[in-house]
Amino acid sequence: MNPSKLKMGLIGGGGAGFIGRVHVTAATLDREAELVAGAFSSSPEKSKRCSAEFSVSPARAYGSYSDLLSSENRLPSNDRIDFVTIATPNHTHADIAICALKSGFHVICDKPMTTNLDDARRLVETVSETGKVFVLSHNYSGYPMVRQAREMIRNGEIGEVLAIRVAYKQGWMHGMQAGITPNRGAWKSDPLKNGPAGSLGDVGTHAFHLLSFITGLKPTALMCKLKSFSSHHNLDDYGQAIMQMSGDTMATVMWSQVSHGRLNDLSIQIDGSKGALSWRQESPNQLIFGQLGKPTMTYDRHPSADYTTPDAKIASRLPAGHPEAFFEAFANLYRDAYRKMRCLTASKEPQLDGVTDLCPSVWDGFDGVLFTHHCLNSNARGCSWVNWCEDQE
Amino acid sequence: MNPSKLKMGLIGGGGAGFIGRVHVTAATLDREAELVAGAFSSSPEKSKRCSAEFSVSPARAYGSYSDLLSSENRLPSNDRIDFVTIATPNHTHADIAICALKSGFHVICDKPMTTNLDDARRLVETVSETGKVFVLSHNYSGYPMVRQAREMIRNGEIGEVLAIRVAYKQGWMHGMQAGITPNRGAWKSDPLKNGPAGSLGDVGTHAFHLLSFITGLKPTALMCKLKSFSSHHNLDDYGQAIMQMSGDTMATVMWSQVSHGRLNDLSIQIDGSKGALSWRQESPNQLIFGQLGKPTMTYDRHPSADYTTPDAKIASRLPAGHPEAFFEAFANLYRDAYRKMRCLTASKEPQLDGVTDLCPSVWDGFDGVLFTHHCLNSNARGCSWVNWCEDQE
Amino acid sequence: MNPSKLKMGLIGGGGAGFIGRVHVTAATLDREAELVAGAFSSSPEKSKRCSAEFSVSPARAYGSYSDLLSSENRLPSNDRIDFVTIATPNHTHADIAICALKSGFHVICDKPMTTNLDDARRLVETVSETGKVFVLSHNYSGYPMVRQAREMIRNGEIGEVLAIRVAYKQGWMHGMQAGITPNRGAWKSDPLKNGPAGSLGDVGTHAFHLLSFITGLKPTALMCKLKSFSSHHNLDDYGQAIMQMSGDTMATVMWSQVSHGRLNDLSIQIDGSKGALSWRQESPNQLIFGQLGKPTMTYDRHPSADYTTPDAKIASRLPAGHPEAFFEAFANLYRDAYRKMRCLTASKEPQLDGVTDLCPSVWDGFDGVLFTHHCLNSNARGCSWVNWCEDQE
Amino acid sequence: MNPSKLKMGLIGGGGAGFIGRVHVTAATLDREAELVAGAFSSSPEKSKRCSAEFSVSPARAYGSYSDLLSSENRLPSNDRIDFVTIATPNHTHADIAICALKSGFHVICDKPMTTNLDDARRLVETVSETGKVFVLSHNYSGYPMVRQAREMIRNGEIGEVLAIRVAYKQGWMHGMQAGITPNRGAWKSDPLKNGPAGSLGDVGTHAFHLLSFITGLKPTALMCKLKSFSSHHNLDDYGQAIMQMSGDTMATVMWSQVSHGRLNDLSIQIDGSKGALSWRQESPNQLIFGQLGKPTMTYDRHPSADYTTPDAKIASRLPAGHPEAFFEAFANLYRDAYRKMRCLTASKEPQLDGVTDLCPSVWDGFDGVLFTHHCLNSNARGCSWVNWCEDQE
Repeated sequence: MNPSKLKMGLIGGGGAGFIGRVHVTAATLDREAELVAGAFSSSPEKSKRCSAEFSVSPARAYGSYSDLLSSENRLPSNDRIDFVTIATPNHTHADIAICALKSGFHVICDKPMTTNLDDARRLVETVSETGKVFVLSHNYSGYPMVRQAREMIRNGEIGEVLAIRVAYKQGWMHGMQAGITPNRGAWKSDPLKNGPAGSLGDVGTHAFHLLSFITGLKPTALMCKLKSFSSHHNLDDYGQAIMQMSGDTMATVMWSQVSHGRLNDLSIQIDGSKGALSWRQESPNQLIFGQLGKPTMTYDRHPSADYTTPDAKIASRLPAGHPEAFFEAFANLYRDAYRKMRCLTASKEPQLDGVTDLCPSVWDGFDGVLFTHHCLNSNARGCSWVNWCEDQE
Repeated sequence: MNPSKLKMGLIGGGGAGFIGRVHVTAATLDREAELVAGAFSSSPEKSKRCSAEFSVSPARAYGSYSDLLSSENRLPSNDRIDFVTIATPNHTHADIAICALKSGFHVICDKPMTTNLDDARRLVETVSETGKVFVLSHNYSGYPMVRQAREMIRNGEIGEVLAIRVAYKQGWMHGMQAGITPNRGAWKSDPLKNGPAGSLGDVGTHAFHLLSFITGLKPTALMCKLKSFSSHHNLDDYGQAIMQMSGDTMATVMWSQVSHGRLNDLSIQIDGSKGALSWRQESPNQLIFGQLGKPTMTYDRHPSADYTTPDAKIASRLPAGHPEAFFEAFANLYRDAYRKMRCLTASKEPQLDGVTDLCPSVWDGFDGVLFTHHCLNSNARGCSWVNWCEDQE
Repeated sequence: MNPSKLKMGLIGGGGAGFIGRVHVTAATLDREAELVAGAFSSSPEKSKRCSAEFSVSPARAYGSYSDLLSSENRLPSNDRIDFVTIATPNHTHADIAICALKSGFHVICDKPMTTNLDDARRLVETVSETGKVFVLSHNYSGYPMVRQAREMIRNGEIGEVLAIRVAYKQGWMHGMQAGITPNRGAWKSDPLKNGPAGSLGDVGTHAFHLLSFITGLKPTALMCKLKSFSSHHNLDDYGQAIMQMSGDTMATVMWSQVSHGRLNDLSIQIDGSKGALSWRQESPNQLIFGQLGKPTMTYDRHPSADYTTPDAKIASRLPAGHPEAFFEAFANLYRDAYRKMRCLTASKEPQLDGVTDLCPSVWDGFDGVLFTHHCLNSNARGCSWVNWCEDQE
Repeated sequence: MNPSKLKMGLIGGGGAGFIGRVHVTAATLDREAELVAGAFSSSPEKSKRCSAEFSVSPARAYGSYSDLLSSENRLPSNDRIDFVTIATPNHTHADIAICALKSGFHVICDKPMTTNLDDARRLVETVSETGKVFVLSHNYSGYPMVRQAREMIRNGEIGEVLAIRVAYKQGWMHGMQAGITPNRGAWKSDPLKNGPAGSLGDVGTHAFHLLSFITGLKPTALMCKLKSFSSHHNLDDYGQAIMQMSGDTMATVMWSQVSHGRLNDLSIQIDGSKGALSWRQESPNQLIFGQLGKPTMTYDRHPSADYTTPDAKIASRLPAGHPEAFFEAFANLYRDAYRKMRCLTASKEPQLDGVTDLCPSVWDGFDGVLFTHHCLNSNARGCSWVNWCEDQE
């Protein structure tokens, strides 16, 4: 094995869902890391069986995350894993992440970070205490044109942000059948494992992070209306939140998993005082810039164009017109995380060499859990307004 | 003049705005009617001056709507106008319309119908009493593919309607300058003439009507958040309403006149239990139909295709691929109105010969005013929920 | 009748095809003209029957074009028609037009102008001799964004024109059935009435005119390959021409009436040394401007935007975002023709007041016939190159 | 290192171009292979310097391809490379590939395969003699929806193929400056290294392969017109070919590297007797299916949909709506090649287990060289027709 490669351990990912494989492909896309160990399933036998599929030595396919963490720690430091990726059901994220961090490993963790505020708080504390790298997989922030949008706003190209609209529409819930285990995250419809939020946690938090990431704004208050249209389970599968953001900005977030014909339709529109931006995940290489009385401008991902911002350039691997997509965006999160890991290893005081830290952090994760918490509460109280700082003590 | 043509009088339309000319073009597109009289301006001189532009005899260019109504009524019945189109500032609609109806003329009236509920109630009563045709210019309901959507839903093609999202986005408010009279409806920013609602009345009511027209559903309760971002005036220029509809349907309506780069971007998405529809005014000849696990289907306006519904077929004038647009949709409202006028003339008991009555009615207008009223109230009360029947007595 | 309106006579248009009705709607859209007479069919009874549909007095529904021309000429000059629109089968265009011009009437004539070069030459001569207005209905040149493209090229915005690609794709030929009369131009598949060119004459000439109109360039030589895929008739239904244009420009034109799913898909792409333009008839309100390394710019039809060229502004009737389409573009040809007619009436030396003459002329019609002629010859000779000036003497 | 992984050697790829890195990323995306050796540059020092960038041990960074092949052959069979990827200038492909095949290695080779027919013939013979796997990097055939199109046509879903149109448009040539070395394949404008074809070889051959791959049809004759608009070099940068295909099918291929605003715009449209397909590389997850009188159907890449064909399913890694793009398509070529390599290793008689062999072969490469050869000849002879079998002996 190339000694310069970082060594990855995967916790979870052995089930029917696709996210474990996505993590490994993204983590190794740039050949900066290699998967060497895994606790792919909570069943030791199943975990062993998965080792071949993931090209991991059976000796390092563990039956539990605690076995993985302790066994790896007993290996010589040159051999042992550098970080774990946590791709388990939501309710287990906090305990696993805390244990991994305390065992000395960096953590890449699936979203939503936790299913409740207490877990989120414990995790924030542990990250602070241990000083380890913790990155939450809000992968849509890895798209080059999302980063371009973020920088254009910071550069004042659309002026003051007036209004933001984010929507995340899927339709797959209509394919679920009562009593039949779906092959995509069966635990997602079990409140004990998934947490009390349904689509809100699954896709709403992505939408919320996307708007925070691009605009840098935080809510001061929000209200939310949830619906549960599907007969498949009792969790929300459709929702709409209205948020008052810092400054005078208004934001709306909507999400659905019951919209027929929608696949993974995450989109954002940002109205500013001087211009407006819009972007859609299913056409990720294009960012639309509108200005009153001017031609609509379509910015393509284009690493050699003058209009491309530095972070968008860094996040690109191919010339314009050679589309990049989901895996590459996801890999950008890993690439950013690796840069932080290597900085940490090189010095006590991590220096990102002037490169922006774009990794979704434990604080972003906390905000996502808080968003979920407030949405559930507002909905339960007849869509009343909830202050963002409420309940936070 | 062709005696079989209906005779039109135009009230308003002589100013800088474009809507008067649009009415005349739409009204005469199918050569079923002719403009023969007008009170184009509240200034008699200006009205005279407009007569040439509108190809109307100066003798029939009146200085006030009351002059027009009374003078025309003194003409022989074969010569006098059959109907008036009202294209004046919003606050004058009710008085003019009531007077015209009572004078024996049919009325085509611009939206929003009135600026307050009392006026709306008076107008509803007058229409009932006089039995005259009254059509509100919710012109977007004239698009063939909007009518196709309406019929597909009635035919059960998307199953039960779960959720509706309508958005109406424009950006021209950024072009307004304090102290400079815009050439497009200067009175629109004067609350005395426009009413207390800004964009809510101007475009929000169109969005509200579109969803009512297509789905046939009514709200039971709503909440609304308004914003006024522009420095140009103090009326709302951005808003979001959440509505609980009859049944368990949830609807959201958003509107904006401060979205840079948006021209006249009215769109609707309807999620049903079996399929979903979406349509956008700026690509009006296409209707998108999505179903889980099936290819997305784009229905083009196509009068000779088997998939085209009867009302969509009737509303088309050209073969598929020969795009129809704004004028033709607007003309469909007139064509529908003329059918009703001719039926009324032919018999006391109007028979539409099995053809659906799709004209936006005085009741639709009342609902639009009520929508505006409730939105303003909800926003004033901190976005609290308002029952649809509240305040209606 | 408004005395200032021009008076129109329609020759043809009474059959199952839609083009007669389109002409009348386009001709009267701006209320500058009125249809007052017609020879709607070569059968006098059928022509009479059509008069009601076209709101024409039965007394002026004639049984033949010669009857129409002579009878109208006997009317007082204030009553008689000013111009005729010829919407008959292709092979009759020349005789009718020549007769009408010699009878003192202006002519609007359907394309292709004639079915052979001799007829085209006779018509060119008659137009020159009579000095009457003659406009060929290459209606796609009436679209505002087509005119914008033309002006941008003249202004040097894309530099030198390097290459042009035009395509006109339809699919309706697959719906034809042997032995069953289609309801759309049955004569179109009869070589005696349609001429020896099939799709080449029907849509290829539109494509050829569009590129000539926008770029102002003429071919110096061309080669062409034709196919006849449909079993419906023996005329070409698919073709491709390569043309060497004046300068070093290369142009390709393709057309099809056997492309499933294509409705009326006329599009053009123009590559210049500094930029490139593209436009598509089914989205007529947008013109795309591309430049290396810059964002793609979408120009919307937008009469109040700074970027809009004068001719595009004049050709618009509605604000941006309120789509205009087929009828409005067609009506622009009539509006331009009326301006020329009025100038001619006002003075012997017509002055268009600095306004560009954009009307497709008899010379454009001649070029279209020549294009057809050369394409047929090239194809017959194994796709050999044909000089544009060949056969012209 | 995982012993089950195939071992890759890269020849070329160390220069400023991006294609070497793309090969490595694609080759390792599924973690089935690892890059362990390279002759990254013809300069030994530069090759060494590249080793770090490619995470290859400096000991295995060779100064020439012959050194790489002989040195690797001296390693124990468990350590030595299994295959080489050739990413050198076009004129060197044949010698390197022949040497590698004769040295016992499988070969993945960049397109165009060779710069002349003699080289192509030699390579065909060597592949036949050695029995080694040889795959040409026509990467666009790796897109799932391209494979879906291929299968739908084989299944008869569009009926008989009537006409095919392929276009490959780029614009970067306008960015070239005389005397300044571009950072993208400087040798591409040197006829000695690139071969006598410019854009024809660079992108035209991709377009040609795409149509062959999807339809399975071969030309019987072709004609071609080339242009050289750019002042940067004398090779063609724009071209159009018309091909008569087996059966009665007509195909047109156009390519350009001087179309401003076009990035990597490869697209194909296939008209059949029952339906038509179209696909565009910059929106690779969608395939459009049109049928007369039916709604246009957009097939999304959707591995769990019933409409998805087996090869498209296998070629997908992510659920629908999670876009896949250039790297994943390229990786599909490698995945297919690896399957063949493993089959060869496992048995003398390779069995692909019923899985279709979709790898672009040495015969496809030969056809591409022949296409180039004929296009150059036809153009040189005034665009005369050339029989496909001509010159082949």
